Amino acid sequence: MMNDFLEAQELLKNTSKDQSTYEINEALKTIKRYNEELYLQTLKSFDTHTLANVAIITPDHILEDILEHLSIIKIAKAVEELESDDATDLIKRFEELNPQKTLAILNRLSSEDKEEILRLKNYDENTAGAYMQTEIFTASIDESIEKAIKRYRILKHSGQVDQIFQVYIIDNQGKLCNAINLSDLLIWDFKLSFADIIKNNSEKYKCYSIKDYEDIQKAIDIVEDYDLSVLAVVNDDEVLLGRITYDDIHDLIQENATEQIYNLAGVDEDAEEESAFKAAKARAFWLMINLTTSLISANIISLFSGEIEQLVALAVLMPIVASMGGNTGSQALAVTVRKLSLNEVEFKDAKKVILRESGISLLNGLIFASIMSIIAFIWFKTALLGLVIALSMLINLALAGFVGSFVPLTLKKFKIDPAVGSSVVITAITDGLGFFSFLLLAKMILL
Amino acid sequence: MMNDFLEAQELLKNTSKDQSTYEINEALKTIKRYNEELYLQTLKSFDTHTLANVAIITPDHILEDILEHLSIIKIAKAVEELESDDATDLIKRFEELNPQKTLAILNRLSSEDKEEILRLKNYDENTAGAYMQTEIFTASIDESIEKAIKRYRILKHSGQVDQIFQVYIIDNQGKLCNAINLSDLLIWDFKLSFADIIKNNSEKYKCYSIKDYEDIQKAIDIVEDYDLSVLAVVNDDEVLLGRITYDDIHDLIQENATEQIYNLAGVDEDAEEESAFKAAKARAFWLMINLTTSLISANIISLFSGEIEQLVALAVLMPIVASMGGNTGSQALAVTVRKLSLNEVEFKDAKKVILRESGISLLNGLIFASIMSIIAFIWFKTALLGLVIALSMLINLALAGFVGSFVPLTLKKFKIDPAVGSSVVITAITDGLGFFSFLLLAKMILL
Repeated sequence: MMNDFLEAQELLKNTSKDQSTYEINEALKTIKRYNEELYLQTLKSFDTHTLANVAIITPDHILEDILEHLSIIKIAKAVEELESDDATDLIKRFEELNPQKTLAILNRLSSEDKEEILRLKNYDENTAGAYMQTEIFTASIDESIEKAIKRYRILKHSGQVDQIFQVYIIDNQGKLCNAINLSDLLIWDFKLSFADIIKNNSEKYKCYSIKDYEDIQKAIDIVEDYDLSVLAVVNDDEVLLGRITYDDIHDLIQENATEQIYNLAGVDEDAEEESAFKAAKARAFWLMINLTTSLISANIISLFSGEIEQLVALAVLMPIVASMGGNTGSQALAVTVRKLSLNEVEFKDAKKVILRESGISLLNGLIFASIMSIIAFIWFKTALLGLVIALSMLINLALAGFVGSFVPLTLKKFKIDPAVGSSVVITAITDGLGFFSFLLLAKMILL
Repeated sequence: MMNDFLEAQELLKNTSKDQSTYEINEALKTIKRYNEELYLQTLKSFDTHTLANVAIITPDHILEDILEHLSIIKIAKAVEELESDDATDLIKRFEELNPQKTLAILNRLSSEDKEEILRLKNYDENTAGAYMQTEIFTASIDESIEKAIKRYRILKHSGQVDQIFQVYIIDNQGKLCNAINLSDLLIWDFKLSFADIIKNNSEKYKCYSIKDYEDIQKAIDIVEDYDLSVLAVVNDDEVLLGRITYDDIHDLIQENATEQIYNLAGVDEDAEEESAFKAAKARAFWLMINLTTSLISANIISLFSGEIEQLVALAVLMPIVASMGGNTGSQALAVTVRKLSLNEVEFKDAKKVILRESGISLLNGLIFASIMSIIAFIWFKTALLGLVIALSMLINLALAGFVGSFVPLTLKKFKIDPAVGSSVVITAITDGLGFFSFLLLAKMILL
């Protein structure tokens, strides 16, 4: 374990821009575990650039230390290093930890930056506005390329814009009308005005945009559908407010995927970043629901206590039917949830999806019903037991495909995340139905 | 259902560049289901641009129709519309369907394009080279910005380069030495040479690159760590070969996530794109493994037939222990798999991860053992039965957290995808152990 510490120490000794912020952050966490003093010393030694980048990805307990041990001036400088979207996120997190100090930090920022952050803070978490940067470069349609470039140089020098990928063109009413990629700009004579070059190419210089209050998920969809590097954010009057860039989209796609995987397994993403106690508490919620559905299954089994006493083979075989049904349901669920999230399937395709999933699971139901009937027959030397398990396997698997697709599609219809809770519901159904169909058929056919 | 058809027909009537290729592809599939003739007519009516973009995302059965019903000349023109990476992918898929026609298409391409595709085809599926585009713009370090821009105009006119984000700077030995973002270029006097502007800014114009034979996963990591829009691909001599762009990274992240979710559920991604029969066959593989492990569990249960006959409550309660263990294991598995894939955890952190996961599941084991002992006592009025279920629940849940993290970490250690098969293994262990510990404890304590 001590090796961790030495490695982390080595890494933090010469932090350069070449090291990924992720590595620095990990090293910092390791140092904190071993040596609090050295950790604080390291934290204080960061230049504002490194501090800013570490702060946006570091856990809350390190943010608390930053607020407690670093000067307001240094923190404010670090905030100013960030682009407006990241700066806003950081301020929001500071605010939750210490509202007073955050106010002091805000008051240290330039009035422009402060206003910007206060405006961005008001956006709802899942809107496009919450993810936009306001560092954009716009040009009026009558301006010449040459003039715009000169203006860009000045803005860049003063730090008001940073990297840009496109020039946004504003018409005389102040509305965003076009976006020209820098590489498309380079091919023109710089004496021309934007109006000149757009005239016969308005389709080519079309600007994709999203309203600031729209769902960020829509932004991801547009970026993916049209392979964009940047998406403009506008208000209701088509006035340009900011941009969402490819790196935010990367992060969002990863986060969505993590959330989906965690939701399917009954795990809360935020809680997993916290202590083991908090993580355990969040997981216990879904385990509690699972316990409840297991108790329902147990009750179903207890209805057939007499039959099990008569023929203990029933107790031996019944978990197989339940387990195969659960597995089949999980397969249908994973495919349906994923296709929904990739927009490969919408609610209007529900019938098609359910038919396909039920068909697939019916096919496998037929196969495994046959296999299992033979195994049961050989094992227990009772042909009718083979028939019972075959029938219940067929029923359970076919229905598993149905519920595995029906449940997430229904949740989606009611605008509930189809990954949340559907696993538990589907396992509850396949378990309950597996035990019930098997034991009931046994009672009817065998005993 | 007929509405689908009319909608699709309407959409395909006026395909413009404004429609997402995804929508066109979906409409095409719908039309094919209803009216084969209209579908072929539509396919033939596509301009080469639309045809090219649909071809790269459409399923194999439509690619077959393209090969069968469209002229070699038109298909070759469509291939030429694509960037080299997409063109190569398409040719590879054509080749699997009809090698002879593909050869004819290749022979219709310009010798340059043909060579390019043949070269790119040789890269292994998971290497950076397989994903790179070769349409890049390079400048020699001694060239002036002005001259480079003039050269770019000519190349762009002739279609040899398309959109660029950076100018790659090559030193006198032909090695890639820097990359300058277009927006960073704009701020300089265009009379200056690249050597002039790089001189004191080599850190700022650092070029991130990856070797062509390296794993594409590494490319994703670099792009995410440094928030890049483009990553250069070089050979062993640092000679620039191509670039990987943000849109490929988007697609890769999504694909990885889909693969992970599917693997965890025992579903094969490629097979899901095919007919229900093929999808069912691929799913049956994992169901077969699940059947095998269920049979092992059944065998464990049958060891205790005598005990179950004596006390049928054991058959009623035993699935609860197995189900809770399975759920706990799935939680630990999801978290470990996801953290491994996001590089938040490496094999060297194995001990830490396993301790945390075992700790979390032990905590929940304590909670649910207590709850369940009370329920069992109330239900069956036997205190010892409560003790038995509490002990086996505690053992099973604590071990579920251990195997849920140990299994994926071990797979990773042996360079096997930790999402593949781990669900089945973990459920097998938690089921088997759940039944065994519960029934054995019952035998020892109760009977």
